[in-house]
Amino acid sequence: MSLDSVYEEVLLKAKKAKEASKLLAAVNSETKNKALRSAATAIIENKEYILKENEKDVKMLRMTLGEVPLIDRLLLNQERLGEMANSLVELSNLPDPVGEVIEGWTTRHGLEILKVRVPFGVIGIIYEARPNVTSDVAGIAIKSGNAVVLKGGQEAINSNIAIVKVMRKAISDFLPEESIQIIENTSREAVKAMLGLQDYIDIIVPRGSANFIRYVRENSKIPVIETGAGNNHIFVNYDADFDMAIKIIINAKVQRPTVCNAVRKVLVHNKIARSFIPLLVKSLEKYKVRIKGCPKTIEIAQDIEEAKEEDWYEEYMDLTLAIKVVDSMEEAIEHINKYGTKHSEAIITSNIEDAKLFTKLVDASTVYVNASTRFTDGNQFGFGAEVGISTQKLHARGPMGLRELTTTKYVVYGNGQIRD
Amino acid sequence: MSLDSVYEEVLLKAKKAKEASKLLAAVNSETKNKALRSAATAIIENKEYILKENEKDVKMLRMTLGEVPLIDRLLLNQERLGEMANSLVELSNLPDPVGEVIEGWTTRHGLEILKVRVPFGVIGIIYEARPNVTSDVAGIAIKSGNAVVLKGGQEAINSNIAIVKVMRKAISDFLPEESIQIIENTSREAVKAMLGLQDYIDIIVPRGSANFIRYVRENSKIPVIETGAGNNHIFVNYDADFDMAIKIIINAKVQRPTVCNAVRKVLVHNKIARSFIPLLVKSLEKYKVRIKGCPKTIEIAQDIEEAKEEDWYEEYMDLTLAIKVVDSMEEAIEHINKYGTKHSEAIITSNIEDAKLFTKLVDASTVYVNASTRFTDGNQFGFGAEVGISTQKLHARGPMGLRELTTTKYVVYGNGQIRD
Repeated sequence: MSLDSVYEEVLLKAKKAKEASKLLAAVNSETKNKALRSAATAIIENKEYILKENEKDVKMLRMTLGEVPLIDRLLLNQERLGEMANSLVELSNLPDPVGEVIEGWTTRHGLEILKVRVPFGVIGIIYEARPNVTSDVAGIAIKSGNAVVLKGGQEAINSNIAIVKVMRKAISDFLPEESIQIIENTSREAVKAMLGLQDYIDIIVPRGSANFIRYVRENSKIPVIETGAGNNHIFVNYDADFDMAIKIIINAKVQRPTVCNAVRKVLVHNKIARSFIPLLVKSLEKYKVRIKGCPKTIEIAQDIEEAKEEDWYEEYMDLTLAIKVVDSMEEAIEHINKYGTKHSEAIITSNIEDAKLFTKLVDASTVYVNASTRFTDGNQFGFGAEVGISTQKLHARGPMGLRELTTTKYVVYGNGQIRD
Repeated sequence: MSLDSVYEEVLLKAKKAKEASKLLAAVNSETKNKALRSAATAIIENKEYILKENEKDVKMLRMTLGEVPLIDRLLLNQERLGEMANSLVELSNLPDPVGEVIEGWTTRHGLEILKVRVPFGVIGIIYEARPNVTSDVAGIAIKSGNAVVLKGGQEAINSNIAIVKVMRKAISDFLPEESIQIIENTSREAVKAMLGLQDYIDIIVPRGSANFIRYVRENSKIPVIETGAGNNHIFVNYDADFDMAIKIIINAKVQRPTVCNAVRKVLVHNKIARSFIPLLVKSLEKYKVRIKGCPKTIEIAQDIEEAKEEDWYEEYMDLTLAIKVVDSMEEAIEHINKYGTKHSEAIITSNIEDAKLFTKLVDASTVYVNASTRFTDGNQFGFGAEVGISTQKLHARGPMGLRELTTTKYVVYGNGQIRD
């Protein structure tokens, strides 16, 4: 396909999305909810078609890369389609963010100022393998009154096209079907074309590797909300409940080691290092966790690989975990703020003062006291679904749901006021 | 000065600001308020010094450009210093945004989630002639727990350095004086250096011409909150109160024609065009407003210059105003959404239905019903002061005060929860 035709496809779809967004912004909640429920039903009713298209993708991936973990991310089945449909139904049951009056006041001139939540317009999202992102993001976009331009990965292209086809047909009785657009060309040129369309796309959310996200940030003419990596820490304080700490670390490390809210590093207070680390290492070994450690950790637990300087920066995408002994909570906080990626950080402690100070001084989207980092997730937070997890500070931070796809507008009522 | 030394200055000051920001984030409200009041007092006490430095700037500008309107923007006097001090006192009386719990809920696992307002860290602001921006922005930054790197224009450099010097000394009993940094090199190279320091500066707010803001957006590695131009409209509906409409248009056009919240275009409903336009033109002529018009306007009022296509895009920075007759409110809205800059838009009408529809469908930071556009201003909104007026949709829209210089953090309390 020529560069021109790539650009043509992206431009045409972005324009259609912009047109649809004008209608979508004024649609009432009940109509949007009906469309979402209709899309949920359609996904279940068209499961054979979607699964057949998904099979093509899986087959192709297996042929090219063999039996890789990516296949599990790509694979759809009846259960996963059910979850996708459920997310859409859950979204239909959530309050509509559009039109929410966030605050309001009357000025000394008697002007009544309302700060009202309104849609962005068109959301552009660039993502990878998981096909459920397609229905989740399309659903969140519709509910928040936005049109969406979806750009998924080549490995999931047949699945994504099928899901969008089914959803567009299902919503068309209630909303413009052009509200959901999918870019069928999955090349880097298509991404580049999207990033230049600031007149038609209002914000871009990139999901993927740190390198890819940097590329988007540096090349986009459209404002970007970045999602990021999760080099997450759990700090075990001197007064931690050992059972709780071990249970939480196992959950955060083992349950799904490739996701961004898994734990990658454990920091242990020096006072309890000699008693806690051997217990932790024994528990982790049952789950075949590969442990690395600082010199002090190695001295205590032996037979452990040494963690090098670059290890402390790394977001292990497998069952590796590094342990470091720290002399104080302050040292833990400093370490986290230096090496962390500002995603999810936790302290296990039983005293309020340290809990409060830790949550205050650790710079991250989500800071936990006595809970697993795995909860940093739109669904777990109660948002129905999520667009991604923002690790930057502008506009949105943490899991992004409906509200994060809205902006605000001031509406001011007067009766002839002029400025003096 | 060599490029290296420009970069050195900017880097050193940004680093100092980052260090100071860590302390500033944890300072309590009363301490910040004392620092602000101390800075207000110091500005008054050091008025001779500041006015003397300001005189140097004014003299230089007069020598190079002659008697230009810019001089009025640059000029300080006792009254203006009083206003600057007042803004700082007002800020000290406003609630502290830091630590505000915006929302909170308990999940089905019993996790308690709090969404807490926290400072960004370091704010970078790049602005032009008006020296009051220096104290306003430094004050807002401090109150919101942020350090600030100020980069003002060459024409105000002596004034800005003097104000910062006085403020730094005044806050030093309460806060790190390094919280306020001013870049003394005012070249474009200094701007470029700032835009690359994403490790030390958290957000950049550019103020100035559309070209300059585009330059910043396209060259910044730091997230940018754009402020923008004000090609603002007042739409006079068929049922408008003529006296009110004329009073509001005169205020919005004449009071201060160079500011961004002044009106540039008036749209008149066809039904009242023949009766209203002659009255409006007569009133505007008293204030020496230069009127341009669409063909229909010219037919009605005669002796009026024709507005060309490019006129409808232009943000007149003088006493020029263009008038256009429209057949319906829908046409007015379409015109505004096509030619406007999404700053401030107004309707003069007496029926609720049109008022509601207009505020809903016009895409702008602030939409007025029966009031002057001149109220789009942090001070008029009750924010004490403002960092600028955002005309983009990400993070902040409209006048930016204390809250707009904060981000959020999720703090999650559990008692051992793991994800199932």
